[in-house]
Amino acid sequence: MVQRIDHIGVAVRDMDEALGLYDRAFGFALQHREVVEEQGVDAALLEVGDGHVELLCPLGPETPVGRHLERRGPGIHHVAYAVDDIDAALEHLRAGGLRLIDERPRIGIRNSRVAFLHPAALDGVLTELVEPAQEHA
Amino acid sequence: MVQRIDHIGVAVRDMDEALGLYDRAFGFALQHREVVEEQGVDAALLEVGDGHVELLCPLGPETPVGRHLERRGPGIHHVAYAVDDIDAALEHLRAGGLRLIDERPRIGIRNSRVAFLHPAALDGVLTELVEPAQEHA
Repeated sequence: MVQRIDHIGVAVRDMDEALGLYDRAFGFALQHREVVEEQGVDAALLEVGDGHVELLCPLGPETPVGRHLERRGPGIHHVAYAVDDIDAALEHLRAGGLRLIDERPRIGIRNSRVAFLHPAALDGVLTELVEPAQEHA
Repeated sequence: MVQRIDHIGVAVRDMDEALGLYDRAFGFALQHREVVEEQGVDAALLEVGDGHVELLCPLGPETPVGRHLERRGPGIHHVAYAVDDIDAALEHLRAGGLRLIDERPRIGIRNSRVAFLHPAALDGVLTELVEPAQEHA
């Protein structure tokens, strides 16, 4: 079902500062940057092997990442696993009684299909499933 | 320098429960389990593509993971990047003025060589470098 760790999502307060930090530390290349209005974030994908670090800067305080920053400060926000069939994966999780945030996939960064599990389902770990768009699979 | 995301480390209160949870949710196979006395954890590596989820259950409350659980509850503890030459990587980070927890590599799980950066160096993200042992590279 899960193919690999697709990315870790990192909540940051200042995108330019974070981009500079990761560039200086590890030379991670910026692969893609996009405002995902639906999720209330300015998001940047840094290339790490066949996975990514996804920097997430909230568009305002009343967004999920904005509230996370307020509550916990900057740091790791979630982990995302790449799946080949997100509908089947969600059906499997639902059948297993795992609590979902997204009952159905929605469109995420780079036209991926994504869904979040509730952190309570995995003992405090906010977990995202990602079915990459064909051209990024 | 960095080859890929090697693993995410997840702090858990009950290892058997966590192993069952990840098995039921995603069918992640247990690849390795080891008590790493120096880090004060019972650690389990679950296979996810060419990376891992590393479940970390503290051996006591006065360990780094024990204190993390007390302060923040269970959840993602750190991210680890695989590097081919950890000495060169540490030298590069030191030259860039990044704050390190481990000035020199120490022996981690499965005879890897590991070093942690201070979370303040990367805006709240506790980051580990891992040079896998030859047989697991």
